[in-house]
Amino acid sequence: MNSRIKKFYSILERLNFDGMLVSWPANITYLTGYRSRDSYLLVSRKGNFYFTDSRYSEEAKPELKGVASLLKINGSVFSLIAQTCLDFKLKAVACEGRYLPYAEYKKISDCLKKKAKLISTHSLIEQARQIKDPQEIGKIKKAVEVAASALKFIRGFIKPGIKEIEVEAELERFIRYHGADNSSFDIIVASGQNCAYPHHITSERKIRNNEPVLIDMGADYQGYKSDLTRVFFLGKINLLAQEIYAIVKEAQARALKNIRPGAKAADIDRVARDFLTEKGYARFFGHNLGHGVGLDVHEEPHLSPKSNQVLEPGMVITVEPGIYIAGKLGVRVEDMVLVTEKGYEVLSGSVNK
Amino acid sequence: MNSRIKKFYSILERLNFDGMLVSWPANITYLTGYRSRDSYLLVSRKGNFYFTDSRYSEEAKPELKGVASLLKINGSVFSLIAQTCLDFKLKAVACEGRYLPYAEYKKISDCLKKKAKLISTHSLIEQARQIKDPQEIGKIKKAVEVAASALKFIRGFIKPGIKEIEVEAELERFIRYHGADNSSFDIIVASGQNCAYPHHITSERKIRNNEPVLIDMGADYQGYKSDLTRVFFLGKINLLAQEIYAIVKEAQARALKNIRPGAKAADIDRVARDFLTEKGYARFFGHNLGHGVGLDVHEEPHLSPKSNQVLEPGMVITVEPGIYIAGKLGVRVEDMVLVTEKGYEVLSGSVNK
Repeated sequence: MNSRIKKFYSILERLNFDGMLVSWPANITYLTGYRSRDSYLLVSRKGNFYFTDSRYSEEAKPELKGVASLLKINGSVFSLIAQTCLDFKLKAVACEGRYLPYAEYKKISDCLKKKAKLISTHSLIEQARQIKDPQEIGKIKKAVEVAASALKFIRGFIKPGIKEIEVEAELERFIRYHGADNSSFDIIVASGQNCAYPHHITSERKIRNNEPVLIDMGADYQGYKSDLTRVFFLGKINLLAQEIYAIVKEAQARALKNIRPGAKAADIDRVARDFLTEKGYARFFGHNLGHGVGLDVHEEPHLSPKSNQVLEPGMVITVEPGIYIAGKLGVRVEDMVLVTEKGYEVLSGSVNK
Repeated sequence: MNSRIKKFYSILERLNFDGMLVSWPANITYLTGYRSRDSYLLVSRKGNFYFTDSRYSEEAKPELKGVASLLKINGSVFSLIAQTCLDFKLKAVACEGRYLPYAEYKKISDCLKKKAKLISTHSLIEQARQIKDPQEIGKIKKAVEVAASALKFIRGFIKPGIKEIEVEAELERFIRYHGADNSSFDIIVASGQNCAYPHHITSERKIRNNEPVLIDMGADYQGYKSDLTRVFFLGKINLLAQEIYAIVKEAQARALKNIRPGAKAADIDRVARDFLTEKGYARFFGHNLGHGVGLDVHEEPHLSPKSNQVLEPGMVITVEPGIYIAGKLGVRVEDMVLVTEKGYEVLSGSVNK
């Protein structure tokens, strides 16, 4: 029996649940090791059931061996899930309220006919996922390594006249030749004023000389993600860009120094934000300082002013301060960091900034 | 004022809704033209409101001009949405039950304090999206053209010894050099026995001689998607593969001939399925015959045995029969078709099969 599911039974029992319906792919992958898509997993001490259809059933069967019985959906998956809960007398069944669509919740609940209840929970599995084991850290390191190599490679490729989308094209190609299964999200290549949009959609714009080019990218290695940002400057860097780039790097360096087990996530965010305030740029930094990375590219914990999370060894987080001045320019520097017993380890230190 | 939103007001009024909360990105794009991410749109005759945060606010502002007031989220987006409903006296507010997570539905409902109600609806916008206007058809044709060129290009690239993932790498690169903004979904490259998994995850497996290679891919052009599948045979084709490939092509040809306005989607599916039954292969064809394609790669209508939809001019659908024999091989042929006034037009006819 899979040890993660076994451990999870105790969490469910402590909260008085008889089982849990899991639909978020990364959560199913975490519990089973199988890269699930469009499917549902019902876990309980009385049995684990995987609900899928003909697109995945043959593929899933050997992968889920010993973990879950596979039920092929022919009619409605929702009545099949409900019937399975009733058959096995699961009366209080947890579900993932942040992901399960309202209509699915309603359909399953209706089929349960008040003989059992589907109960919305928050982050039950995500909380466990925050602390990575050595095998997971190994995969994340590989995902970081591929993205880091891609950034080093692309630095030599970028020249005035090349389009943002062509830079993306080369990165998408490169990572797959260097061990990645996929990109971990849509790559952002932002040049010139486009850098001022934190989540710019990579466009047909041609990169010009004396401009910054911001690249935010990551690789997916066996389900585990990386997420890195660098800004390259072509030709001359104007004074404003030099100034804000130095400030962002210093804000990141100060935040990094405070990372250790026991540190509050909100405090790490505050260190960077306070430095930007001191320099007069805090109003140009709208997003959080960072987030966890693992089977999802954005996951717990969040380095945000409102977070009440505390860092622990085995957490993997981004540290990514930025300054975005609309119509002018923007910079962001993003590294990935492992929280260690004694402090922290920057996983993406090999890429110059 | 945007004419799609205007038209949508009448639909809402007919159903006695005062407004609708839209969160599904493709639906927001359809109504506003803006490629929304992680944001919410509240539409009503009393005003249209777009809820976003600092990652998108500067980018969205000019794009949403004349369409929506932009409200930047600082606190909770859910209480801000609820407060806006209350401020404008929107009492019956439709939402997208199939997408809106249960926890978000619950949070907004709680903030409405029974002074207004969030009501789950199904496919209100998706139904309108089924019929494409000439501008949309133009964009879909461009998305098909890019994917078709990519398939023609890759046929010359594939050789024994090349890995599935390297084929994907080249396709991801090619489409971005030829006008695509993105892939429309994770490209499937399945070789040998992997072809038997309809949704195989592209792997490090090396392609061998005398094997089929199945490629299922699409391009995203200005938000509009394409979705095509071809099987290439390297070296000699064994008799079984020859037989099932011919059957799949014939099943597709028969289905295509029946496409016209007024035809039932279920009947088109049945024509292909009946032919596979006649040949003894129906049990190896588990999925639907096809689906609509537009701002989402899978959308209404569905060519499935259970569909009650009727084809209309302006619909764009895939026709994709397949035969998958576990442990042996699989083939699928997928084209995109526009339903015209008189019948149909195959949009992807330029790629040999």
